[in-house]
Amino acid sequence: MDGVTLAQVAARFGLVLRGDPDARVTRVATLKDAGAGAVSFLTNPRYRKYLEGTAATAVVLDAATSGDCKVAALIADNPYAAYARIAAWLHPEPPASAGVHPSAVVEPSARVAASASVGPQVVIEAGCEIGERAVIGAGSVLGADSVVGADSRLAARVVLYRRVRIGARCLIHSGVVLGADGFGIAQDRDGWVKVPQLGGVRIGDDVEIGANTTIDRGAIDDTVIEDDVKLDNQIQIGHNVRVGAHTAIAGCVGISGSSTIGQRCMIGGMVGIAGHLEICDGVAVLGLSMVSRSITEPGIYSSGLPVSEAGAWRRVVARLRHLDELFDRVRRLERPAGRSDPEPS
Amino acid sequence: MDGVTLAQVAARFGLVLRGDPDARVTRVATLKDAGAGAVSFLTNPRYRKYLEGTAATAVVLDAATSGDCKVAALIADNPYAAYARIAAWLHPEPPASAGVHPSAVVEPSARVAASASVGPQVVIEAGCEIGERAVIGAGSVLGADSVVGADSRLAARVVLYRRVRIGARCLIHSGVVLGADGFGIAQDRDGWVKVPQLGGVRIGDDVEIGANTTIDRGAIDDTVIEDDVKLDNQIQIGHNVRVGAHTAIAGCVGISGSSTIGQRCMIGGMVGIAGHLEICDGVAVLGLSMVSRSITEPGIYSSGLPVSEAGAWRRVVARLRHLDELFDRVRRLERPAGRSDPEPS
Amino acid sequence: MDGVTLAQVAARFGLVLRGDPDARVTRVATLKDAGAGAVSFLTNPRYRKYLEGTAATAVVLDAATSGDCKVAALIADNPYAAYARIAAWLHPEPPASAGVHPSAVVEPSARVAASASVGPQVVIEAGCEIGERAVIGAGSVLGADSVVGADSRLAARVVLYRRVRIGARCLIHSGVVLGADGFGIAQDRDGWVKVPQLGGVRIGDDVEIGANTTIDRGAIDDTVIEDDVKLDNQIQIGHNVRVGAHTAIAGCVGISGSSTIGQRCMIGGMVGIAGHLEICDGVAVLGLSMVSRSITEPGIYSSGLPVSEAGAWRRVVARLRHLDELFDRVRRLERPAGRSDPEPS
Repeated sequence: MDGVTLAQVAARFGLVLRGDPDARVTRVATLKDAGAGAVSFLTNPRYRKYLEGTAATAVVLDAATSGDCKVAALIADNPYAAYARIAAWLHPEPPASAGVHPSAVVEPSARVAASASVGPQVVIEAGCEIGERAVIGAGSVLGADSVVGADSRLAARVVLYRRVRIGARCLIHSGVVLGADGFGIAQDRDGWVKVPQLGGVRIGDDVEIGANTTIDRGAIDDTVIEDDVKLDNQIQIGHNVRVGAHTAIAGCVGISGSSTIGQRCMIGGMVGIAGHLEICDGVAVLGLSMVSRSITEPGIYSSGLPVSEAGAWRRVVARLRHLDELFDRVRRLERPAGRSDPEPS
Repeated sequence: MDGVTLAQVAARFGLVLRGDPDARVTRVATLKDAGAGAVSFLTNPRYRKYLEGTAATAVVLDAATSGDCKVAALIADNPYAAYARIAAWLHPEPPASAGVHPSAVVEPSARVAASASVGPQVVIEAGCEIGERAVIGAGSVLGADSVVGADSRLAARVVLYRRVRIGARCLIHSGVVLGADGFGIAQDRDGWVKVPQLGGVRIGDDVEIGANTTIDRGAIDDTVIEDDVKLDNQIQIGHNVRVGAHTAIAGCVGISGSSTIGQRCMIGGMVGIAGHLEICDGVAVLGLSMVSRSITEPGIYSSGLPVSEAGAWRRVVARLRHLDELFDRVRRLERPAGRSDPEPS
Repeated sequence: MDGVTLAQVAARFGLVLRGDPDARVTRVATLKDAGAGAVSFLTNPRYRKYLEGTAATAVVLDAATSGDCKVAALIADNPYAAYARIAAWLHPEPPASAGVHPSAVVEPSARVAASASVGPQVVIEAGCEIGERAVIGAGSVLGADSVVGADSRLAARVVLYRRVRIGARCLIHSGVVLGADGFGIAQDRDGWVKVPQLGGVRIGDDVEIGANTTIDRGAIDDTVIEDDVKLDNQIQIGHNVRVGAHTAIAGCVGISGSSTIGQRCMIGGMVGIAGHLEICDGVAVLGLSMVSRSITEPGIYSSGLPVSEAGAWRRVVARLRHLDELFDRVRRLERPAGRSDPEPS
């Protein structure tokens, strides 16, 4: 019989098991849909209602919620991380077969490790280096002198411009473009003069970059994404930005040129960050916010406006245009009766 | 002579014709630029000013506006839908020639219908199924075990990861990425642990997906786009989202993971929708709004702020920071004279 | 010895040289990192602190700041434009070799200039025209009857649908999709009817388009981008939009269908522009703003909200919902004592 025993799971990941150590699991599933042989998890209180009735063989959860668990419990300090590791163990990535597909176009001066996998229709230009066990997905294009580190994977149709360096164990999703020109233009009498974008892009180790995200090359120096940064889909990162290690950025965020994001920051979806500013370590910015000045204190920041019914919102918007005036009216009301001389604002 | 008569148009689409039934039309045109042989339409009052002077042979419009029409009128209850059908009839899509281009790389275990068209430089991995008359545009990459239904068309350079299923009569535009990993990461002491993304993506029938839109695969279950959903360009849809039938979503919208959008909703451009929430059927959200809680009542919702002159807006922003304080000041003013004890807020 | 003398630089670009005319420069660098042989520049006051200590051989700057320059000064009225031209002279683009790569698929009816360069895995459909010295990057797909003007460059993996015309000296970055269908759908009883998108896309001369930007084809007429327009990454431009000459648009902007942007406008990052409106010449819109009505006066416009600490912002948001009511309360306070009859709002 296949799968692993709960005793094996608990031992491998340092979890406390409450239940039959010889029960076997073969896959992960949600609390709601799990059946025999599945291991599930509970981390979001929203889904606690499914705990009591789950048909999972075991559930990964923390000690506090484990009392309500009627099936085997795998008790973890950090149940989500434990679940992630169990899922990766039960569902390993299908291995890519080493070698270069005959339809790929690889310049002779490129060095491709023998254990690397280069998919169909790939283009690898002169001077590239592809590390051990790296995977280059179908249709990807690697510009001259680019580097892909060991065990990194590019999904289908990734583009690296020239001189883009990717570290080890990265995962770059489809449609990502690394190293396009930054938006450097100088205004002149007759129109725009293009500012040559001469830097590169440097991606650290253990970085994941979501589908259709774009990271521009630096104007002179490199644009830098440090180790263990996690980027969701459709993020735009301008030239000369630096994103600090372990920072996670949700989808559709835009970061303008020359800004620096600290380490262990969390940036919510659709946040816009202006150029030439610094965000210190440990900052969280909630979704749809605008960062237009540097942030020097760790903490949580926000400027998003939640929806209202459209008619009510229209009245708020109309009133906002008169907000300045309302402050003046209140100040006048606060004046002692009889005084009417203007005060300095 | 080619083209069709107005009598034929009226009969085919159930319209009332006022004018010469034997007049012929060969193409569509705008009211402003139309000439002899063109059929035009009026649905947006903004363009009514061009009705009187149009040189179109016929105009599709509703009964109420038809009085001002000096040329032949094709009167419809729903002129825009009638125009759409007439335009499709007069300007049919050029047919794609069946067969697999010799430069495509198709794994032997993939099943491609004889009537399907597979363009140059396409990659189709093992176990895929391509339905009758389906079209796979140049440079597209289909991951293992993906399915494209009958009469569906993928434009150039679409990417499907493994196990993405697309229904019948869909149209998927260039740069679309379906099935990239959802943004699942668990925070651990030393950094992030990737949560394997094991679900798939399921697209219903009659779905259109705009250029460079991305839809992530589910973490465990599938991400689901139901029948007749229409998605514009550069939309980002997170893992485990479900979008209900007949819902239309404008460009640049972001939908975070595990949220559910009801049927027949209309989501305006650049709207951001947070994760793990539910929007009921029949909701319209105006552009640039933020949905951060579930919406349980059909209706129109908004939180966008229209631009002002920048200096005036700067004053509003400065005042907003003191809004809480202004409420307190007004409350103090409202107190009967003589009372000054603090009230609970 | 290679490089050029400062006398040559000054003469070629019409600059005033203060320093050794025979000193030589070979490359550009930032003030902070420059060494011997490098020319640097100063335009942003933020970086003025690096001027005094720079090891650059020469610095491009304006007369006002040149007094603090300890090394050779190249004094310009417009230092950024002068720097841009010097950088382009010192760091010329590597030339692409003329000819069609054997892996490209080019329909016989396409006309490709002998001096043009067509990269690997490219697809060029019937009736296309590729001008002199044009470069078509690896993996790009050009739909039928498209035109790429002389000296224009498409980076890797650009898609042009059918009948997209690009002028001379343009630069189109990777992942760009030009000519996908506009978002035209008509609501009918049973669901959506697709409105055929029959127009094309017309791009002027000297246009740059950033990575993963999408520009839809017109519904009937063309979508038009005029000369010298500069578009950053991940911009979405709807059908029938016209963008006026010399306008620059930052990343992640969305422009809905049928809107017209004037000449010499500057649109900040993540701005959303509604459909069917007009923005006159000379308008600047700051980042993250929403334009929902036409703008008829040149000037600077804004509606972005900068972040606050999240708790403080939450209180502002809660208060905003009662703003309308606050105005009423203030009006009541303003009434002469004794009057309490309601006033019309």
